[in-house]
Amino acid sequence: MNKIYNPKPETWTSILERPTKTVDDIEATVKEIFKEVQKKGDAAIAKYTSLFDGAKIDVIEVTKAEINQAIASISTELKEAILLAKSNIKKFHTAQKTDRVAVETIEGVNCWQEKRPIQKIGLYIPGGTAPLFSTVLMLAVPAEIAGCNEIVLCSPPDKNGTINPAILYAANLCGVTKILKVGGIQAIAGMTFGTETIPKVYKIFGPGNQFVTVAKQLATQYGVAIDMPAGPSELLIVADDSAVPAFVASDLLSQAEHGADSQVILVSTSRKLMDVVEAEIQIQMEALPRKAIAEKAIANSKLIFVENDKIALELINEYGPEHFIICSEFDDFYSNGVQNAGSVFIGNYTPESAGDYASGTNHTLPTNGYAKNYSGVNLDSFTKAMTFQKISQKGIQNIGKAIEIMAEAEGLQAHKNAVTLRLKAIEDGK
Amino acid sequence: MNKIYNPKPETWTSILERPTKTVDDIEATVKEIFKEVQKKGDAAIAKYTSLFDGAKIDVIEVTKAEINQAIASISTELKEAILLAKSNIKKFHTAQKTDRVAVETIEGVNCWQEKRPIQKIGLYIPGGTAPLFSTVLMLAVPAEIAGCNEIVLCSPPDKNGTINPAILYAANLCGVTKILKVGGIQAIAGMTFGTETIPKVYKIFGPGNQFVTVAKQLATQYGVAIDMPAGPSELLIVADDSAVPAFVASDLLSQAEHGADSQVILVSTSRKLMDVVEAEIQIQMEALPRKAIAEKAIANSKLIFVENDKIALELINEYGPEHFIICSEFDDFYSNGVQNAGSVFIGNYTPESAGDYASGTNHTLPTNGYAKNYSGVNLDSFTKAMTFQKISQKGIQNIGKAIEIMAEAEGLQAHKNAVTLRLKAIEDGK
Repeated sequence: MNKIYNPKPETWTSILERPTKTVDDIEATVKEIFKEVQKKGDAAIAKYTSLFDGAKIDVIEVTKAEINQAIASISTELKEAILLAKSNIKKFHTAQKTDRVAVETIEGVNCWQEKRPIQKIGLYIPGGTAPLFSTVLMLAVPAEIAGCNEIVLCSPPDKNGTINPAILYAANLCGVTKILKVGGIQAIAGMTFGTETIPKVYKIFGPGNQFVTVAKQLATQYGVAIDMPAGPSELLIVADDSAVPAFVASDLLSQAEHGADSQVILVSTSRKLMDVVEAEIQIQMEALPRKAIAEKAIANSKLIFVENDKIALELINEYGPEHFIICSEFDDFYSNGVQNAGSVFIGNYTPESAGDYASGTNHTLPTNGYAKNYSGVNLDSFTKAMTFQKISQKGIQNIGKAIEIMAEAEGLQAHKNAVTLRLKAIEDGK
Repeated sequence: MNKIYNPKPETWTSILERPTKTVDDIEATVKEIFKEVQKKGDAAIAKYTSLFDGAKIDVIEVTKAEINQAIASISTELKEAILLAKSNIKKFHTAQKTDRVAVETIEGVNCWQEKRPIQKIGLYIPGGTAPLFSTVLMLAVPAEIAGCNEIVLCSPPDKNGTINPAILYAANLCGVTKILKVGGIQAIAGMTFGTETIPKVYKIFGPGNQFVTVAKQLATQYGVAIDMPAGPSELLIVADDSAVPAFVASDLLSQAEHGADSQVILVSTSRKLMDVVEAEIQIQMEALPRKAIAEKAIANSKLIFVENDKIALELINEYGPEHFIICSEFDDFYSNGVQNAGSVFIGNYTPESAGDYASGTNHTLPTNGYAKNYSGVNLDSFTKAMTFQKISQKGIQNIGKAIEIMAEAEGLQAHKNAVTLRLKAIEDGK
C-alpha cells in the first residue's frame, strides 16, 4: 500500500491518476466481428459463440421451459434476498418519476416537457465465474418502471449452452421480454444491427470486459446509445477517528476483490486510523477466496493523509470517485460539499455492498472520473425528455416580433417568414 | 419534391433514410490538431486560428472593453427581442428543476438522489454568416440555472479578430464566465485538454460543421462528455385539411434554408393538401435570400400520403424527427402517441421558428434518428444525478442478510464480509 502524507495540490493529478488502457489492438477485432454480424446475422453469432464460449447453440432464445427450470433450481433463501433487493430498488427508482413540467411562458405560449420511454433497450450481463444477477435487477427494474416496450437481455452461455439460473430468475422476475444466449462482442453487435433472432435496440446498458467495452463504444457509431463509458471500479473512503477501522478495511477489500485493476483509496485526517486500517486489511485479506486479486489491487491502493477536511474534500472532488464512503465526524460537510461522485455512502453502517445489492440505489455508476460529467444509471436513463409547445393566436402575437427580429439578425429569412405569414393572417382576420 | 403515395411499411426504412456522411478523411486532420493542441497549447491554437480563420489573435480572451463595445452596438430592438426570448427560456428551464428524491426503502435505509451541476462546461458557437446568438441563450441560460461554476464559450473570430456583437451581448447577458476567440477543431481540442488560456471543461455543448462534429466525438475519447451526436437538422410535419397550406409551406422552407442537407418531410392524409403545399412552396421560395440552399433541400424533400392517422403515427415514430409539427384535426392523437421526437409543435400558430428562438423550449435537439434514444438539451443536461444512502444499525439488520446471500451467490466474499462484520458488531454490542 502506498502511504502519502500531505501531498501538495500540484501533485494530486499524478497521485490520483487512473491506469489508462490502450484499446487499439482490440479495436480491429471488434470491428471485424461487427461487420460480420451486420452481414451474416445469426450465422455469425453462432460462429463466435462457438469460438469464444465453446458452446454450440441451436436456439439462441432462452425458452420458457429453461426459465422454469432455473426458477425451480434457485434456493428459497436466494429468491427472498433477490425479492427484497428488488423491492428496495423499485421503491427508489419509482420515486424518481417526474411529472410533466408545464409552463405558460407568456400569455398564449404553452410549453411542456414529458419523459417518454426509450422503446427498445438491451441489457448486457456478463457470465463467467461471477454471475451478476444483481445487475439484472439494477437495469431491468428501472426499465420496466420507465415503460420500455422491449427489454432484451444478452448473456454468454457456458460450455453446456446454459445461462446461470440466478440471471434467468432475475430477468424473468423483472420484466425482461427476451433472453438470449449470446455474449461478448457478438452480443453487442447483434443488438446494434439486429439479426434474425436478436432485436435491434436503441440503447445498450451493462458492464463487461474490455472487449464488451470497446464494442459498446463502436455501437455508438451506428446510432445506438450506451449507458456510460466504462472503466475499472473504484472506491474512495474518507475516514477519521470516528470510523471503525475494521469496517473501513472490509470496504476497501470489497472493492479490491473486483479486480487487480480496482482503484482503492483512503483519505484521512488521522495518521493513527490509516495505520490501523492498513493492519486490518492484512488480517482480513488472508481469509478471502479472491485473495490473489485483492492483493494486487491493495498493492496499488493509496492511503492519503491530509491536514484537514477542507483539503480532503477538494482532493475528493478532484478525483470524482465512483463510490464514496464517508465515515467522518463531519459527514454533512462531505455529503453537502461533494460535487463529483457516483454514489455516496454515509456512516459506519453503510458499506458499499449495501448499494451494490439492496439499499435501493443503482450500482451502475460512472467510474474513471466520469462522475464529473455523467449520472449513474437512474430512471431517466431509460427515457427521453421531449418538449411540446402549443401557441395560440394571442401567443404568436406576443412573441412573433421577437422571433422576426432574431431570425433576421441571424440571416434566416424563411424562419422570419413563417411568423410574418401568421401574424398577417391574424391581422387580416380581424 | 418527391411525392410518395401509400408506401408499404417494408419500404419505410429506405424512404426515410437519412444521408450518411463518411468522416474518415476528416478524422486524420482532427486527430493531428488535437495532438498539437495537447502538446503546444496556445501556440497551436494561434497557428490554427491564423490558418483556418485568417486572423492573428494576440489575446484570445474577449476583454470587458470589447463586450461593452458590443453591447453598445446592438440595436434596442434586438436587445428587447433577446431579453424576451431569454425570459421565456429561463421560465421553462427553471421549471425543470427537480427536488431531492428521498425514500426510506426499508426501515433504517435512507436513500436519496440529488442533481448537482457539472462544474465546468464549454459552449461552442459557430461564427460565419449566421451568427447563432440564439444558441448562446439555449445553452448558457440553463447552465446558469443549473449552477455550473465555469461556463466557457468559444467562437471563431472573423478576419479582423472579432466575434459577432450579438454573440458577445448574449453571452454576457446569460452568465458566460469566459469568452474565447477560437473556433473549429482547435476550440474543441482546447476545451478538451486545456491550454494556458483555455480552461479544460467536463462537457462540451453546441452545434458546428462536420469538423466540429468529429472533434466533439474525439473529445469523448479523452474523458469529456458532449451534449449529443450531431447530424443535419430536420423537420417532419403531419398535416390534414385543417392545416393552412401557406403556413405548412413556410415551415418546410424555414427548415430547408438551414442547409442543402436539411431533411424536410410532409406526411398527410390529404392528397389535396399535399398539392397545395407543393405549389405554395414554389411561390414562397422565390423571395428567399437563401433560395439556392432551400431549393436543394426541397428537391430532396418528401411529401408522403398515407391512408389514415394511425399509419402516419407509426411512420413518424419510425422516423423520430428532430422537429415535429402537428397541424391536424387529431392533434391530441399525435401528441399523446408520438414516442420519438425532439420537440413537438402543435397547431397552426406554432411554427418551428417559435421553438428556435422564443417560446421557451430548447432548440438543441436530437437529430438523425437520435430522438429515439437521446433527450434534447434541458436543465438536466448540465447536472449529474448523484445518489446517497445512510443506513442505521436497524437498517443494516434489515437488509444485511439479503446482501450476504446475494454477494455469496455472486462469489464476492469480501462484499459479504463488509456486512457480516457490521452485523456481528451490532450483535456483540447488545
